[in-house]
Amino acid sequence: MYRRMAEARVGRLATVRPDGRPHLVPCCFVLDGETLYSAVDAKPKSTLALRRLENIRAHPRACLLVDHYGEDWATLWWIRVDGAGRILDPGAEHDRALELLVAKYPQYQRDRPPGPVVAVDIVSWAAWP
Amino acid sequence: MYRRMAEARVGRLATVRPDGRPHLVPCCFVLDGETLYSAVDAKPKSTLALRRLENIRAHPRACLLVDHYGEDWATLWWIRVDGAGRILDPGAEHDRALELLVAKYPQYQRDRPPGPVVAVDIVSWAAWP
Repeated sequence: MYRRMAEARVGRLATVRPDGRPHLVPCCFVLDGETLYSAVDAKPKSTLALRRLENIRAHPRACLLVDHYGEDWATLWWIRVDGAGRILDPGAEHDRALELLVAKYPQYQRDRPPGPVVAVDIVSWAAWP
Repeated sequence: MYRRMAEARVGRLATVRPDGRPHLVPCCFVLDGETLYSAVDAKPKSTLALRRLENIRAHPRACLLVDHYGEDWATLWWIRVDGAGRILDPGAEHDRALELLVAKYPQYQRDRPPGPVVAVDIVSWAAWP
């Protein structure tokens, strides 16, 4: 389960807005032990892209889902992690997270993510089937 | 945008747990005007699968994301709808939602979803790029 999550190329990150509504965005991420990191990169560079940062500051809880969909429903699976979100300040953890992201995604080698990095410290795992 | 959302085969549904934490699950769905429907089907039939129902009863706000991921990041896109969730009681709307789901997903013809149907009345759309 850990490996399948670690190797997934995309996840969907759910947070909660300050007013209590859920928010959801696809994201690239990397797993490092029981923490996952995701960068706000150049792809969705708009004020909307920063919603997840505001949300995490207001309500630190976040969850990330990876799943497989195929028309043969016998092949479906998903894995979800729940945890506490943090926005990384510049420093050693921020630099290490960026290194891990660049190592996983060759796309980041050309365009290193300029934005903040979100960390989620995983509290629990769920999976199906 | 409407058509791309309507034709997507899978979405990810975010709700908020009674304690305020976000919750996230992949789901099949169908769009009908400005309402989307999703059935709790036989796939993830467990007590966990009903979490989304509890959540919607506690906090009606929900959002659903569809997206495309590919290694060529120039092809990425996502569409998100935010709205108010409802659990359908047996009746005309429930029956119509099931018909629409069966029409979209041949898989449901063999195994008609036995569970409750969630409706989300869409309040707003967001998309990227």
